[in-house]
Order: sequence, then structure tokens, then C-alpha cells
Amino acid sequence: MASDGKVRIGVIGAGRIGKIHIENLVYRVPDATVVAVADVDVENTRKWAAPYGIKKVLAEPKELINDPEIDAVVICSPTDTHAEYVIEAARAGKQIFCEKPIAQKLDTTKQALAAVEEAGVKLQIGFNRRFDANFKGIRQLVESGKIGEPHLVNITSRDPAPPPIDYVKISGGIFMDMTIHDFDMARYLTGSDVVEVYAVGNVLIDPAIKDAGDFDTAVTILKFANGAVCTIDNSRQAVYGYDQRVEVFGSKGAATAQNETATRVTVSSESGVVSDKPLYFFLERYMESFAQEMNDFVACIRNNTTPPVTGEDGLQSLLIAMAATKSAKENRPVKLAEIG
Amino acid sequence: MASDGKVRIGVIGAGRIGKIHIENLVYRVPDATVVAVADVDVENTRKWAAPYGIKKVLAEPKELINDPEIDAVVICSPTDTHAEYVIEAARAGKQIFCEKPIAQKLDTTKQALAAVEEAGVKLQIGFNRRFDANFKGIRQLVESGKIGEPHLVNITSRDPAPPPIDYVKISGGIFMDMTIHDFDMARYLTGSDVVEVYAVGNVLIDPAIKDAGDFDTAVTILKFANGAVCTIDNSRQAVYGYDQRVEVFGSKGAATAQNETATRVTVSSESGVVSDKPLYFFLERYMESFAQEMNDFVACIRNNTTPPVTGEDGLQSLLIAMAATKSAKENRPVKLAEIG
Amino acid sequence: MASDGKVRIGVIGAGRIGKIHIENLVYRVPDATVVAVADVDVENTRKWAAPYGIKKVLAEPKELINDPEIDAVVICSPTDTHAEYVIEAARAGKQIFCEKPIAQKLDTTKQALAAVEEAGVKLQIGFNRRFDANFKGIRQLVESGKIGEPHLVNITSRDPAPPPIDYVKISGGIFMDMTIHDFDMARYLTGSDVVEVYAVGNVLIDPAIKDAGDFDTAVTILKFANGAVCTIDNSRQAVYGYDQRVEVFGSKGAATAQNETATRVTVSSESGVVSDKPLYFFLERYMESFAQEMNDFVACIRNNTTPPVTGEDGLQSLLIAMAATKSAKENRPVKLAEIG
Amino acid sequence: MASDGKVRIGVIGAGRIGKIHIENLVYRVPDATVVAVADVDVENTRKWAAPYGIKKVLAEPKELINDPEIDAVVICSPTDTHAEYVIEAARAGKQIFCEKPIAQKLDTTKQALAAVEEAGVKLQIGFNRRFDANFKGIRQLVESGKIGEPHLVNITSRDPAPPPIDYVKISGGIFMDMTIHDFDMARYLTGSDVVEVYAVGNVLIDPAIKDAGDFDTAVTILKFANGAVCTIDNSRQAVYGYDQRVEVFGSKGAATAQNETATRVTVSSESGVVSDKPLYFFLERYMESFAQEMNDFVACIRNNTTPPVTGEDGLQSLLIAMAATKSAKENRPVKLAEIG
Repeated sequence: MASDGKVRIGVIGAGRIGKIHIENLVYRVPDATVVAVADVDVENTRKWAAPYGIKKVLAEPKELINDPEIDAVVICSPTDTHAEYVIEAARAGKQIFCEKPIAQKLDTTKQALAAVEEAGVKLQIGFNRRFDANFKGIRQLVESGKIGEPHLVNITSRDPAPPPIDYVKISGGIFMDMTIHDFDMARYLTGSDVVEVYAVGNVLIDPAIKDAGDFDTAVTILKFANGAVCTIDNSRQAVYGYDQRVEVFGSKGAATAQNETATRVTVSSESGVVSDKPLYFFLERYMESFAQEMNDFVACIRNNTTPPVTGEDGLQSLLIAMAATKSAKENRPVKLAEIG
Repeated sequence: MASDGKVRIGVIGAGRIGKIHIENLVYRVPDATVVAVADVDVENTRKWAAPYGIKKVLAEPKELINDPEIDAVVICSPTDTHAEYVIEAARAGKQIFCEKPIAQKLDTTKQALAAVEEAGVKLQIGFNRRFDANFKGIRQLVESGKIGEPHLVNITSRDPAPPPIDYVKISGGIFMDMTIHDFDMARYLTGSDVVEVYAVGNVLIDPAIKDAGDFDTAVTILKFANGAVCTIDNSRQAVYGYDQRVEVFGSKGAATAQNETATRVTVSSESGVVSDKPLYFFLERYMESFAQEMNDFVACIRNNTTPPVTGEDGLQSLLIAMAATKSAKENRPVKLAEIG
Repeated sequence: MASDGKVRIGVIGAGRIGKIHIENLVYRVPDATVVAVADVDVENTRKWAAPYGIKKVLAEPKELINDPEIDAVVICSPTDTHAEYVIEAARAGKQIFCEKPIAQKLDTTKQALAAVEEAGVKLQIGFNRRFDANFKGIRQLVESGKIGEPHLVNITSRDPAPPPIDYVKISGGIFMDMTIHDFDMARYLTGSDVVEVYAVGNVLIDPAIKDAGDFDTAVTILKFANGAVCTIDNSRQAVYGYDQRVEVFGSKGAATAQNETATRVTVSSESGVVSDKPLYFFLERYMESFAQEMNDFVACIRNNTTPPVTGEDGLQSLLIAMAATKSAKENRPVKLAEIG
Repeated sequence: MASDGKVRIGVIGAGRIGKIHIENLVYRVPDATVVAVADVDVENTRKWAAPYGIKKVLAEPKELINDPEIDAVVICSPTDTHAEYVIEAARAGKQIFCEKPIAQKLDTTKQALAAVEEAGVKLQIGFNRRFDANFKGIRQLVESGKIGEPHLVNITSRDPAPPPIDYVKISGGIFMDMTIHDFDMARYLTGSDVVEVYAVGNVLIDPAIKDAGDFDTAVTILKFANGAVCTIDNSRQAVYGYDQRVEVFGSKGAATAQNETATRVTVSSESGVVSDKPLYFFLERYMESFAQEMNDFVACIRNNTTPPVTGEDGLQSLLIAMAATKSAKENRPVKLAEIG
């Protein structure tokens, strides 16, 4: 930490999500300073970064990782580089925030986690939805016992539009790319581990997604160690916007989070009573959760506590995603124990 | 009462509201029997009444009033005949239900109430909204003290479309014809009496209403004996349907009744999230309250209790309507004590 | 039909649901007359039926079935008698309404359907939820194409409290007894047939239900011929009441039906903003749908049209229930083609 | 403006609202730089301001006003100093943002406006609610004609708790201090001017407020030039939080803004269905509107356009507040033309 007690941060990758984290770290995380950014496009990143008062803009992530003025790295580069940077950062003794997933492969993931373990550094995985006030509120209701033992969890998670086909091809598939957030959410809400998965995938929106070997519509059932059962339904195209709702039903009641909207305005006219659509996509919907995520990452470093989303959490969601992918392919329930 | 314990009822006037009461009395009020109906259009009424098993259909209300087989009369004839039939029915010793208002004039109303008083019969006035589950629920919340002392009451009461101009001309004006229901609702909800009224009337919808000497848009403030203040807003034309909402705000909280709708369906599409408009008009909206009203009328006869809406309630609402009419005309607050 | 054009009906079984049908037929189905009721408890049924003006109360269903004054029978006796009475009524040339299910066994069901087919009479199965305004509204949205091709269907169907264990034992299991309504709903909403089922059952509420060989918590996935996927979640005990919601998500939008409540009142106080719980159970929630169901049954007889819920619909839901039961037992997806 | 195109701002008064404006200007208004802050408590303000990179912290507002490095001043000092600083800033050729009200007296207000007029500088008044997404949305619906001509406006505006009695004494009274925001809102929503006011004030919460010569509960009716009528209800104590709702009802429909809440979570349990209370008070509720307000102030300077809330808007709301105060005192409708 710097002499002023602030955590000095280097960010690897200044793409869409990297820029969000930088803006939040600069303006909304009082206990952090962004010391350096590394991005292949040094020139544009330098221009972009100037108003934020960031001095070092580098082309080479490893230079950043080994900078002695940096306490922690925030890894926002393409997925296939995550594990490598995690390992290097761990070896350099840095605290680590890594966007999800660590890797699409199990052994790579495990190697990264082993390096973190060996170095004794912290690793937080970028499951940002845990920091949303709605879902956190429901988690607290479960934890407090107010809705009793969880019996059923329903997660609706639909994107407003499919990603480009080129992205679909390298995404690892819908369960690895999209549903993985819901897998983490299900574990977070119940506080229990998944033991078995049954998943169904269809292509109902765009045949090109089928050609790319993926699904655009999926339903997953998760069976938890504590007996709870979770359903997740996904679509790559909800024409009305980003549909993000959860419900936990327990022995003493149910807690439900409805969609956030831009306003609470309703218009009554001859054609009906109309209210706002859900906020369009994750940038609008989860803006606050990204800021909270960074604050909590910085806090766990300063207070030397366990990160709110651990490497183990990242591993478990990967295992579920792999099991779901296998289940959808083989049309049978797959136990997590079968994977890895 | 009949030997089977049922209250034997004669209905005067088989127009729109008369038919509703008859249907409810026949099918939904187990403790009543409709013995006779009187209507000027005997022939059509006879045809209409046949399937309900009503034996006597008469042209002459007075014959019905004096029928010894009848315990109670339900007066649904035109407003200007109400007082006369109330007086005759009282003199004949019948229990009386009379649609609102007893009369548009104060002395006529008082004469009718005096006759009822003298005869010692019961008189219930047709303020049907008191029997709606929503408003009754709010009244109970006030009575139970759960929202504390009432400080503010807001009533929104808007019709879907103006009545025919010919009706407007004989209606007594918007305050006497339409807002009178809201005046009674305000008294019902607060359990307190009105001491002063300030009312504003405008014509914003149809100039013909102005020509008829009436308003189509009105706002009224009622000051209650207990210090509470009530606002009522009225429009003769809410294009989205019959808008009937109330709120009571008190020292411990607020209770609000939203509009009833035909379904709880919402449709999310590119153009927004659309839900149902309010139920169209009073027949749809207050169908249940009409049935409950008749049941409660019959029950007060059988149990010999005070009717749930008394002649005094009818008188008070008339006084408020007269004060509001005067206030809107003279643009000044008018005390109820000024009237009558 | 009677000379007055009314359909003359005999009701078999005057238990809870039989009484509801009789009341509705008498008071709310103008085109029907209840001519006779058969029930083992003749004496009490006679007392109960008297105020409804029903002349014949019999101990013997077969007497009723063969009564030449009867056009149609409504079968509300215990499930294990349904098929027998359907067959007899068909042979007697009566139109038939039969509570669900026709039978818990496939061959019995098929025998009953064959008898109906041979006799050329109508058979309507008692899936009353199809007649609820909410679900009918959603079906119409799907049919009209307003929400596009259905991709996902989510049904939440939770009872307020488990039935007595003695009933559980003979119920055929949760999928046959409870989820069968949801299976029919899924078919109704999508207008498509189910090809495969995957079901999970747990006992999380009462171990006695486990001892009885049944589940109290269940999740089912239905795969439809048209590619849509449906999730159904069931619980035998939602402490907040009868939770009955559906959602259909399609290529052009989503339609959702929320729970019905007794009022639209909300109370804001220091402890939050509180609104009504869902209506308690099926009698409260589906009262209107039962009346509509009888009206539609009578209308299909009078107009000589296909019943709104056919024997084939009954058969399909049975097949799905059998597949779900098998799936939950064997923990694998089961094709409908495997059954029967 | 600075060479980088940013508007250089000096803030007078670093109390609660001053600090909010500074934080927003620093972090959320990219086109502004906070150059200086003036506050009587120089020492604490210097400490507080350091992390925001503000170099000049002064004791003397006039020094700040005359600083040639400053383009615009934001006046957040106590109300009784507003007019003086507005006049000095105007004479110094600065652009001006002034918290509401300019003054509690009419002549002082007019002198300040005259100075602004003469200097040809911009003056924006701090009616922050206009910048809230909900109310802006409704204004846009009115402007677009989607709800037709406005007929009725209902504003509910209730504080969670009364201010300290010492504040009440110097506040100018509830209409000047609290309802003034609603007066501006009513003018903003309708786009029309108020011609007459009728107001009722009561003390139902705390007798000390009566002793201080003020009301804690108030209802106001505004009559607009265009015929629309507005009701405003105020309470100093809504135990469930800060209640801020508006409705505009017009010839083509109605637009309503409900309260904002911290989450969209609802909990269903035996005791009901509970959702969040409104956000507690103005800091929580209007945080976004304060940021938007500063952005729009800076934008109107950079683009040389009329401020979104003008000195005339400030004057009009003052006139309405004075008329309301007079009306409540004299219990009669008061024309704005009577004031000033």
C-alpha cells in the first residue's frame, strides 16, 4: 500500500470492462489509486487515460505485474490470457482481481489457483452480480433465516441481443459464457454447492449460432447438496431488454428481485398502462455493482480478509458450466464429481 | 320476514341499477326473496323478471309499498321520486334501501328522514363503494389504528366518459351527481365529519357541459372536524377507464388502494411493459360491492342493527355537495354550517 | 335439451368440487338446469340441495346416468370411479364433463376414451385453470402472435399446505395429482405437444410424505415438439398462500401472469410497504374459472362444438405425469413415446 | 473558460449541499473544474477539500467572486446571503448557480434578478427535482402531447421527519421552505403559470411547530393559466420515508411517477408481501438529479443557452409560496397578481 494507505492498482486490458473498472477505481473507490494500465493499444489507451491522471500506460502486462509500485492487479484482458497473468501476478506477490472465467479449461484453472495458493495472495473473481443491491438483499434474507431453508431457486437471465458470431465461436458456449454468471448466483444465493446438473440447449433465434456449435436458448436444473433445486432459463434475445430476475423460495417464504428500470413512470392511455422496459444491458444494469465490486476488492486487501468471490467460487462455476455443457450434449443429468 | 326467515323484498324501478340489485338479491343474497317489482314499463319488466322467478310485476309503486307480503323496499326509481317513496314506505312500516341521493334539495331530504325517524324503520342509502373490499380494507386499517391518526386523504375519482348532456342537465351538477360518492367515501374512511369545503370546477372536456351549467373537471378540498384534510380530483373523461383510487395518510403510515384490473397479465415487448387498464366503469368495478351492499342491507334487517350507510350519511353528503357547489360558484371556502 | 333450450344436467358426487359445480350451474349458467344429483350420502345431499331447487337426489349414479330427462352428466365422484361413469354415460348417450384425471392408469383412460369415441358424445376434462382470465389472456397473446414464437415457459405452482397423508397415499403422487394441472397449462399456453420430460422430486417439507412414497417439492422440464422448453416448480407448502404464476417468453416478447389478491391495498409503514398475499387456495383463486368452465361445457353442447378441454388433453397430461414420475424415479429424461 | 475548455467554478458554502455539489463537479461533471471553495470554517473545509484536488480554500466569498480564474460561482451559503452574493457575482461578470430560494423577500429577489439582467450573466436556480429522470420523463410526455392537454396535476411530497425547530423558525414557513419545490415542479410539469392559490395548513404532528408559527401538514390547490388544477399535499413526517410522487392527468391519458426504492426485492411470507420503503430523504432520492443539475449548469455556460431553471422560475415559485402563505392565513384563494 502507498504511504497514504491507498491500494495501488495496475489494470491489465483497457477494453470495455477494463475502462469501467478504471473509471470506478478513480472516481468511486476512495481507497485505491490507479498507478498503471497495460494495453496492446498503448497510444489510444494513453489518450483515454490522461484525464484520469494515470501516469503509466504500458504495452507489456508483465512490466506492470512486476512494478514494485503496484500492490494489486486487475486483469481485464481476453479470457485466454487470464490464467497466465494470474500466475505471474501471484508469483510477483500481487493481490489479484481477475475477470471471469480464469480459464475455459479445468487444468489451466487449477494451475492458476495453485499458484495463488502457493503465493498466499488474494484472488477475487469478477462475478459482479453478487454486488448488486437486489441480489445481495436476497442473499441476506436467506442468510438471516427470514425465508427459512431454501427449497427452490428460479433464475431468469436473458440478454437483449446475441453477441457477434465471431465471439460466440470462442466463447466456450452459452453455459460457459453466459449461464456461468447464473451458476455463481445460484451458489451465492443458496450458500450451498451444486452436486448435479441437467441442461437443455436449443437454437431458436439464429441458425448461425447452431452452425457455431452453440445454443441461444437454454434451461438448466441444478441440484444442491442441501436438497434445494434451481432452475435457470436463458435466452440470447429478449426483445424488451436485459431480463435479470431471481427468486428464492424457502420454508418460511419467498424473496424475489424484479428488473431495474430507468424510471418509475407509468403512462395510462387508451392502449393500456405502460411502464419502463428493464435497463438495456449489463453496463446499465450492473453499473453500481461494478463500483461496489472494486470497493470490496480494495477493502479485502486493506483489511486482509477473504475476497467476497474466491478462486474456489470461480472453479465451482467452471465445473458447473462444464457439467451443463456435457449434460446438454448427452441429454442426461451430470454429476459434478464426473468432471475433473 | 317470511316463515323461512327470508326478508321479502319489493324493488321499485327496474332500470340499470334496479336490475343489478334484483339479480344480486336473487342469486347472491341467500337471506332475501324478491317478491315484487314495480316499473312503469310493466310488460318488458315482466319478461325480464320471469327467469328470476319473481311473481308480481306491478306498474304502481304504491301498490308494492303497501303489499303486506313485503318487508322491505329497494328504491331504484328516478332521483326525483326517491323522497316520496321513502316517505310512503316509512309510513307503511317497510324497511328501506334508497339509491343516492334521497333528493337534491335539503328540505325534501329532511322530510324524508323525518318520516323514517317517525316510523322507526331502517333506511340505508346506496353508497355502494363502502362495500368494496379495497375501501373497506382501508377503513379497517384506519379503525384499527394501524396507520395512526388520519392526516391526509386523497381520492382520485374519474369516469371513463361523460354522461349524455340531457342527464347532465338534471344531474344537480358534478358535485351532487359524481363527487357525492367521494364525499361519502371521505367521511367513511376518516370516520370524521366535514366542517368546510373548497371546490374548483372547470370545463376542459366538452363545452356543452359548460352550456348545461356544469363542470367536467373538479378539485375539492374537505376539512374535517379532526383536523384531517382531504383532496378529491374528478374528471368526467379518463380515456384509460374508470380511475378509482384512495389514499389515507396518517401518523403511523399510509394505506393506498390502486385500481382493479381484469387480469394481472403484463406484456413486455419492444414498446414497453404493458398491463391492464382499470376496469371500465362502475358496473365492472363495483359489481361485488353491489352484492355485498344488498347482503348487508338484508343482514341489518334480520339482526335489527343500524344500516351500514344511514340517512344521516346521505344528508351529510348532500350538505357537502351543496357546499362544494356554492364554493365553486363563489370561489371561497364554504362551511357546512352555512348550508341548511 | 329441455323444451326451454336449457341443458339438463345430472351431477355425480356432491363433495367439495361437486357442490361448487352445482352452485355455479344453478346461479351462473343461465343455459343449464340441474335436474339430479347422485351421492352416497343421500340424506345430507338432499338437505343441501333443497334451496337450489334440485328435485332428484339419488344414491345410485347409474340411475342418474340412465335418466332420460338428463342430457349431460358432470362427474365429480372419487377419481377411481371416473372411468366407469364416463363409460356408462357414454353408452347412455350423455354428454360428459369429468373431473381430472379420468384415471391414474393408462389403459383405463384409453378404454374410457374409446367408449366416448364410439358413442360419439362429448367429453370435457376438468382442467379448470384454462378458464382463468389471466391464463386465457396469455394464451390469446400467444395465439395472436403478439409475443412471437414461444421459446420458454415458466410455471410456478405452489400449494399453501400439503394435503392429508391419507390423501397423499392414494393421490398417484405429486406429478399425477398436482403438477398434472401445470402439464395441461403448459400444453394450453404453447399450443404444442410435449415430447420429453425431466423431473426432480424432493422431500423438504414433511418426512411423512417421503414415507408415503411421494415428493413435496418438484421441478419439471418439458420439451415441446416446437422447440420450446418449459420449467415447472412445485411445492406443497408456500406459507404465503397459493402461488400460481406463469410466463411465456417468445421471439417478440414475454407475457406474465402474477398472482391474484383479495385487494389492491398497500400499507406503507416503518416496517416496509406491504401488500396482500395471493388468494389462499384454489377455491378462492379459481372461483371464476369454475363458473366459466361450466358455461363453456354447456355452450359446447348447445352449439355442438368441440369441448375446450378434450379427452385427448386428459390423456396427454396423464402421459406427461407418468413420464415425470418415471423420470424422477430413474433420474433421466423420459420421452413420452416410452410411455404407453 | 480554462484553456482546456472546462468551466472553472468557485463554490460558496461547503455545508451539506455545497459538499454534494463539489463532489459531483469533481467526479461527475467532466466539463468543470472546481478552482476554489469559500467557507467560514476554512480549516475544516481545507481538510475536507484536499482529496478533491481543490487548491484554493478561502474564508471570504467576495474574494472568490472576484477571482479572475473563476468563470462561475455556485452559491450554497445560508439563504439570507444568497441575494447579496448573486448581486456581487453578477457585477463581477460571473455565471451563477444559486440554491433556492434567492431570498424570502420579494424586493430582495427582484433586486438580485435586476443585477443579473443588467450584467447579462446566466442565473440558474437550484430546483434539483427537475433533473430527476422520473419527473423529466413526465415533463417530456406532457411536452410531446402524448397525454394531451394537462387537466389535473397531483403532487405528493412528504418528508420523513420534521426539521429542527430552530430551522423551522427561520425557514420562512412550510410553503416557502418545502412546498416551494412542489410549486416549481407543478410549473415545470404543466409548462404553464399559476394564477391563483388556495392553501390549507394544519399542525397535526408537533405542537412546537405551531408555537413556531408554522404548519406541519398542508394542502395546496394551484389554478393554472391554461385551466389545469394542481393539488399538492405535504407532511413533515411520513414514517415510511420520503414520499415523492407526481401525476399529470390529461385529455389523452395520465403519467404517474412512483417512489424510488433501494431495491426491487419483495418478500412473501405469512405476514404479507413486503417491498422496500421509499428512499429515506433527499440525499438518497435526488443524488442523481444533483449531478445532472450541475452538468446542465455547466452545459448552458459552454453552449451559451438559457439555464434550465431561470431566475424567473425562482421568482414565480416565490410568488406562489407567498400567495400560499397568505391564503392559509386568511383562508381564501389568493391571486398571484395580489402579491408583488
